[in-house]
Amino acid sequence: MTTVIKNGTIVTADLTYKADVLVEGGRITAIGPDLKGDETLDATGCYVMPGGIDPHTHLEMPFMGTYSSDDFESGTRAALAGGTTMVVDFALPSPGQGLLDALKMWDNKSTRANCDYSFHMAVTWWGEQVFDEMPRVVARGINTFKHFMAYKGALMVNDDEMFAAFRRCAEIGAIPLVHAENGDVVAELQAKLLAEGNNGPEAHAYSRPAEVEGEATNRAIMIADMAGVPLYVVHVSSEDAHEAIRRARSLGRRVWGEPLIQHLTLDDSEYRHPDWDHAARRVMSPPFRDRKHQDSLWAGLASGSLSVVATDHCAFTTEQKRYGLGDFTRIPNGTGGLEDRMPMLWTHGVNTGRLTMNEFVAATSTNSAKILNMYPRKGAILVGADADIVVWDPKKSKTITAATQQSAIDYNVFEGKEVTGLPRFTLTRGKVAIHDGEVRTEEGHGQFVAREPSGAV
Amino acid sequence: MTTVIKNGTIVTADLTYKADVLVEGGRITAIGPDLKGDETLDATGCYVMPGGIDPHTHLEMPFMGTYSSDDFESGTRAALAGGTTMVVDFALPSPGQGLLDALKMWDNKSTRANCDYSFHMAVTWWGEQVFDEMPRVVARGINTFKHFMAYKGALMVNDDEMFAAFRRCAEIGAIPLVHAENGDVVAELQAKLLAEGNNGPEAHAYSRPAEVEGEATNRAIMIADMAGVPLYVVHVSSEDAHEAIRRARSLGRRVWGEPLIQHLTLDDSEYRHPDWDHAARRVMSPPFRDRKHQDSLWAGLASGSLSVVATDHCAFTTEQKRYGLGDFTRIPNGTGGLEDRMPMLWTHGVNTGRLTMNEFVAATSTNSAKILNMYPRKGAILVGADADIVVWDPKKSKTITAATQQSAIDYNVFEGKEVTGLPRFTLTRGKVAIHDGEVRTEEGHGQFVAREPSGAV
Amino acid sequence: MTTVIKNGTIVTADLTYKADVLVEGGRITAIGPDLKGDETLDATGCYVMPGGIDPHTHLEMPFMGTYSSDDFESGTRAALAGGTTMVVDFALPSPGQGLLDALKMWDNKSTRANCDYSFHMAVTWWGEQVFDEMPRVVARGINTFKHFMAYKGALMVNDDEMFAAFRRCAEIGAIPLVHAENGDVVAELQAKLLAEGNNGPEAHAYSRPAEVEGEATNRAIMIADMAGVPLYVVHVSSEDAHEAIRRARSLGRRVWGEPLIQHLTLDDSEYRHPDWDHAARRVMSPPFRDRKHQDSLWAGLASGSLSVVATDHCAFTTEQKRYGLGDFTRIPNGTGGLEDRMPMLWTHGVNTGRLTMNEFVAATSTNSAKILNMYPRKGAILVGADADIVVWDPKKSKTITAATQQSAIDYNVFEGKEVTGLPRFTLTRGKVAIHDGEVRTEEGHGQFVAREPSGAV
Amino acid sequence: MTTVIKNGTIVTADLTYKADVLVEGGRITAIGPDLKGDETLDATGCYVMPGGIDPHTHLEMPFMGTYSSDDFESGTRAALAGGTTMVVDFALPSPGQGLLDALKMWDNKSTRANCDYSFHMAVTWWGEQVFDEMPRVVARGINTFKHFMAYKGALMVNDDEMFAAFRRCAEIGAIPLVHAENGDVVAELQAKLLAEGNNGPEAHAYSRPAEVEGEATNRAIMIADMAGVPLYVVHVSSEDAHEAIRRARSLGRRVWGEPLIQHLTLDDSEYRHPDWDHAARRVMSPPFRDRKHQDSLWAGLASGSLSVVATDHCAFTTEQKRYGLGDFTRIPNGTGGLEDRMPMLWTHGVNTGRLTMNEFVAATSTNSAKILNMYPRKGAILVGADADIVVWDPKKSKTITAATQQSAIDYNVFEGKEVTGLPRFTLTRGKVAIHDGEVRTEEGHGQFVAREPSGAV
Ligand SMILES: [Zn+2]
Ligand SMILES: [Zn+2]
Ligand SMILES: [Zn+2]
Ligand SMILES: [Zn+2]
Ligand SMILES: [Zn+2]
Ligand SMILES: [Zn+2]
Ligand SMILES: [Zn+2]
Ligand SMILES: [Zn+2]
Repeated sequence: MTTVIKNGTIVTADLTYKADVLVEGGRITAIGPDLKGDETLDATGCYVMPGGIDPHTHLEMPFMGTYSSDDFESGTRAALAGGTTMVVDFALPSPGQGLLDALKMWDNKSTRANCDYSFHMAVTWWGEQVFDEMPRVVARGINTFKHFMAYKGALMVNDDEMFAAFRRCAEIGAIPLVHAENGDVVAELQAKLLAEGNNGPEAHAYSRPAEVEGEATNRAIMIADMAGVPLYVVHVSSEDAHEAIRRARSLGRRVWGEPLIQHLTLDDSEYRHPDWDHAARRVMSPPFRDRKHQDSLWAGLASGSLSVVATDHCAFTTEQKRYGLGDFTRIPNGTGGLEDRMPMLWTHGVNTGRLTMNEFVAATSTNSAKILNMYPRKGAILVGADADIVVWDPKKSKTITAATQQSAIDYNVFEGKEVTGLPRFTLTRGKVAIHDGEVRTEEGHGQFVAREPSGAV
Repeated sequence: MTTVIKNGTIVTADLTYKADVLVEGGRITAIGPDLKGDETLDATGCYVMPGGIDPHTHLEMPFMGTYSSDDFESGTRAALAGGTTMVVDFALPSPGQGLLDALKMWDNKSTRANCDYSFHMAVTWWGEQVFDEMPRVVARGINTFKHFMAYKGALMVNDDEMFAAFRRCAEIGAIPLVHAENGDVVAELQAKLLAEGNNGPEAHAYSRPAEVEGEATNRAIMIADMAGVPLYVVHVSSEDAHEAIRRARSLGRRVWGEPLIQHLTLDDSEYRHPDWDHAARRVMSPPFRDRKHQDSLWAGLASGSLSVVATDHCAFTTEQKRYGLGDFTRIPNGTGGLEDRMPMLWTHGVNTGRLTMNEFVAATSTNSAKILNMYPRKGAILVGADADIVVWDPKKSKTITAATQQSAIDYNVFEGKEVTGLPRFTLTRGKVAIHDGEVRTEEGHGQFVAREPSGAV
Repeated sequence: MTTVIKNGTIVTADLTYKADVLVEGGRITAIGPDLKGDETLDATGCYVMPGGIDPHTHLEMPFMGTYSSDDFESGTRAALAGGTTMVVDFALPSPGQGLLDALKMWDNKSTRANCDYSFHMAVTWWGEQVFDEMPRVVARGINTFKHFMAYKGALMVNDDEMFAAFRRCAEIGAIPLVHAENGDVVAELQAKLLAEGNNGPEAHAYSRPAEVEGEATNRAIMIADMAGVPLYVVHVSSEDAHEAIRRARSLGRRVWGEPLIQHLTLDDSEYRHPDWDHAARRVMSPPFRDRKHQDSLWAGLASGSLSVVATDHCAFTTEQKRYGLGDFTRIPNGTGGLEDRMPMLWTHGVNTGRLTMNEFVAATSTNSAKILNMYPRKGAILVGADADIVVWDPKKSKTITAATQQSAIDYNVFEGKEVTGLPRFTLTRGKVAIHDGEVRTEEGHGQFVAREPSGAV
Repeated sequence: MTTVIKNGTIVTADLTYKADVLVEGGRITAIGPDLKGDETLDATGCYVMPGGIDPHTHLEMPFMGTYSSDDFESGTRAALAGGTTMVVDFALPSPGQGLLDALKMWDNKSTRANCDYSFHMAVTWWGEQVFDEMPRVVARGINTFKHFMAYKGALMVNDDEMFAAFRRCAEIGAIPLVHAENGDVVAELQAKLLAEGNNGPEAHAYSRPAEVEGEATNRAIMIADMAGVPLYVVHVSSEDAHEAIRRARSLGRRVWGEPLIQHLTLDDSEYRHPDWDHAARRVMSPPFRDRKHQDSLWAGLASGSLSVVATDHCAFTTEQKRYGLGDFTRIPNGTGGLEDRMPMLWTHGVNTGRLTMNEFVAATSTNSAKILNMYPRKGAILVGADADIVVWDPKKSKTITAATQQSAIDYNVFEGKEVTGLPRFTLTRGKVAIHDGEVRTEEGHGQFVAREPSGAV
């Protein structure tokens, strides 16, 4: 069975041109004029782009004996509805748990995925077992290792552990990722705020100021430099962190920054909302920032000092959020975004003139594929590439609302936002999962994407 | 007649993969395994890359009634010998001369070119005629206008003229280029140095310090910003200029910087050479700088704050240089480089680990094609693209010497430098111009490449 | 006759201590405990500080055949009422007028001054006469020369003229000052705005964006560096200009920046006021900026990258402002501030914790005295220093209003602002000019203060 | 008994003028023309300046059961010989030792001092006892607390401890000091170098790169900012650390940096010396850096982003250094400098034009007195101030050599350097300790200088 996408304009990270695209066996088999196939998708007036890649999600993440509400099924369904055809999730070992053991758990959860996925492995503790298993994780197709500089007493690793892990990455051709906030200072600020009676969600933002993120980013960059590895900084939310990245890059260092769509488009006034639920639903780390920081992130995308746009999708329900009533430090950290990332970035980036269409593709798809070493299988419209494709209708509008979303979460942080620019069709390895508003996803269609260590290239 | 490049590894700005390339009618007609053609070029052990584009040359440039020694024939022959398959030259109107009139002169000179070429148009004076002719120049396929902030009394335009010209560029979808040095200050410093008896070539460098370049770069960026156009800064030679560009980019402004291979690899100690000829042959503007500035330029290429590598090839002979004996201000400004740009950048960039191969292609070819709006016809290895291809042998070495060069100039500023990484074959629109050391160029084979205004895209 | 200031706390740029101050013959003759004098001023609860120095005023400035409304009498009376005991005004030669000739005019106007004063000389055109007269101006006790980079067609000098004048300053031990805005670009923006029908006062701000100021500041710094002189940048209003100053200072260059009290405390929303008069009265160059720029200026005062706070007092009346009805470019540039500079800076600087009291004294008095080379005769509470003293009552409050001010101008840009911190007494060379709210100034009491060239120190 | 210093030129941090100085009872009792006293010191041709204050010394520091060779007697004798009249040493509690207990040990050692001294208290561990004793230390006249971010396993404190200590400082009006290097990374680099067989003194420098210092400086600044205290960074040796300080200051934060005379004038080539002893004698932390870093430090002194010049004097003998033969990590860290700080800074700062004489006084004396809150008792030439005075002969020259020094150490890191500018006389609280080359120090003359918490001012 062949599918042809006809009459569209192909937009990739570096090209814009008119051509049809032929898909067969899950791959792109031809690009050119006047192609024919068994099934035809009409892309008139649309842009045919590489499907989005969200390099940072947490589906079915464990929390207090339950899980975040979007699992690999609903999460990837939401992704596809918004034009995203691949997610990279995080395998998170418990304290003392082996990496391979944790990986098995994530393997199990991901069997229901509607689109392809890959994993980052987190280094949540340090020891000989972790050291030994790291190359075995790489052998399993995972070349990226996440480190938390915050969440003290839980996921956080210290500088000496991080340096050891980064050096291990260097040896095995893997890339370290960091969640960059100074966990010691955050913990003290949290305790101080609680002691002063500030226990509401607004205190969450007070406990994690931009300075704390900037410092940790700067520190991680130094440690990576000393270890001789590149560095990928997740959820860059502030000018402070971005400045550290820019400064390192200006010295020729290889550092990538990942802003989230939330930080690009929402600000900290959300936490001052009188409704506890409204504010708590926006609790994530780092917290939303003010306008100055937003401007910085957009400029970074335009100039190339920031590389990719993610969501950190971690869909805690209002009920789960309420676990932190009376103590903001117990509000589970995370918001949704998978379904809205691409329409929101198009609306606020391309439609405003901040980003070109090619830069949009780079930021939402191609750069992730390159950095994570799965380009051009992913992130490309090329013959031979996986047929992960979004047919983007730049005229299509909607108002974002939880009422109609695919995500299992009971609210949406973008509730009420108008977007213009939405998928007409989304294809995952050739399968049309979204067809003009109709959801045709197939549970379990998604496959794990193995990624070679970069040193192997 | 078809030609096939077999057994090589294709390296483009964003891909590295094994495939053969089929060429017919001057274009790439197929990329894939096991291709066959009438003629076979063996690329075993080689990289198949887009031919180089030098975005900044001055061939057969008028000087005191004579011309710089490399004309479009010898210049493009030298280019091809070094893997460069296209040059972009500058049409330079005399004071009061119309743009179209000047263009005609450059059209005439370029008929002998061995490879394709395009032009930038210089705005060397300002008036209604220039204003009126600018869109007609664009209609002729030239979307870039060069402005000199130095060479007072000759090519230099003042801020108000430059602002007017930049605004005109904005209206017609063209991009302004600047030679950024403060011409007023240079003129005063020259006079002061001469008055003090400093008339040798070393005084050339003293008269054009990095501060003077940084200032003008900063000024041009502001003027472009006010006019609402992007900006292309030619021959960025210093941290001062690079800092201004970085700062603008960090605010989201669209500014590109072009370092030269000379500034990347040679330093100002050359001007202290006891032999007047040696020093005078290196006289160009901006002058060579010290190590601090070199480090800055390399870091800029790695981080993306600088975009393309050029030569400013302007091959004045020793005899012409001697016109400035006793008065450094009369030494004609310019050096060669066309033949050596790619081997020197590969040797000092890729072989040292500063740049990836893909970044090498971006800097030497693809980025120029994109910025100057001729991508993917040029700068790409894609089906349908012009077959401007270099088959690069990373093991091939030589010692650069004027004795064996194609360039007509009687010396070489890189004399004695060892390079590793050289073309095995160079194809210009399908024609094999360099065949394993043998020169098979064809005078007049080169064609003018028209470039649409960027606004039209 | 002796006067003693009793029971106060002396606050200077680097000391805070309790002592009485004895004044005789216009000078401080003793500092210590339990001093006695013919007249006693009770400073209980007050700070005894060096009288303010406003390094930037335009009293009785010529305009279209009339003059700005505050002359040396009313202007210095206003100054004294606000704790300022010295002003430095600008002698402005007309096109072609000799410097000494202009100086004579300012000598004549200043005879009525109530407090001491000095002059900067402006270089408004360039020629042999100016070159020759500069050392004669220095011999007359004026070691600072102002250059306008804006006001094209009137006061503006070009880069070559400015470079020549700066080099002349270097030779004679004088310091150049600059009004830093790119006059060419301003002129074009003005024409464009008028052509588009934007002729109201809000267009004044649009025509002089911060970028234009930052650029000119950066340029002036480079030119001073090349000329080998320090540089004093007047009315630094933006982060853009401040960044250029900081960057230069971080390289060890000697550059001082002078923010105005207006830019520190008022913002550009003033120009959006519906009342034409309200907006036009705030028209000055550079225009008021937004919050980001204000924060930058305050940080500069705290960190030392900005040195002094001035007013650029140039009191055009509402009637004079209306000359620009229908054409914002004809609105005379200037506002008042002399009377309010110190109370406003104390209220918004010291009372908020941004500045220490010692930093307040440095910014309002001592740093000007040092840079302009009249320290410790001025700017100090030391035995032998001129008895220019303000006895500052940190508890005293008022609401600023034109209705009760000394200034001759018919409005006040700070109208309605509350200030806490006001003079109880102001002494000018020993004479009590302000006595607990009562004005006892003496026309003609003020004398010219000659300042040696810095090279002579 | 009165002493008069006649015919000199007084140079303070902000004044230069001719006057005699009368001293009685250890204090300055008069400043003016034609003073008379029992004893006369002829200052003809000399500058009369506040005696130097070295804010950072380690006299008789414990090491492996012995002590660094200069104790409070020889150390302060060396200080006086070089024009320094006060030292601030560090009380260093052992692990678990109480602060007051440690202070007692330093009280005992310091009884033999020839000049006045004060102490910083080090926070080398954290616990309730330290928390409780901190205000008692302040009550004892010590308002500064030092924190080590390096020396892991020994003096180092972690971020949470440092944050807690900084907050405690904020509560009690004290100022935190930091030794800023990332101790975790240093420890790992040391282990790696040793494992690779790099055990010589040159590996000391490799194990403590500038990046590691820049990172820690940046981190300490953030933590101080969050705690709401100013910060004093000791021994700033690199552009990396200086950049972090500049950046913080540009945001209005109160951060002071202290470069050492060694880092200003010596570079890392010293560690490549073939003689193990030569190199080991220069081992200190941070290590010497290259020219780029030196330029940065000098520019910081000129622009005010760096505040004071110290020595970190810690005089380990060659014999003690040899403890680290075969293992560079065991070489005791420290060099001399007390005797040479002022002549070296004058020679390389004032004589070269980098610093004015007033800036020299500020950097060597007055700024320390102000920051450490003992101004104007110390650091001033004012009536009432302690008569800690150096009469500086700008013409006097010598070649530095261990053979003739006062310091007990058996070598000198400045051996062979020519200096011009030396004390003719040095007075400590009125006593002439250095008299034209003759040493007249008096053991035990020195007294402890209590310093109020800054909050009390
Ligand atoms: Zn995170
Ligand atoms: Zn996450
Ligand atoms: Zn040029
Ligand atoms: Zn050129
Ligand atoms: Zn002005
Ligand atoms: Zn003015
Ligand atoms: Zn230390
Ligand atoms: Zn120390």
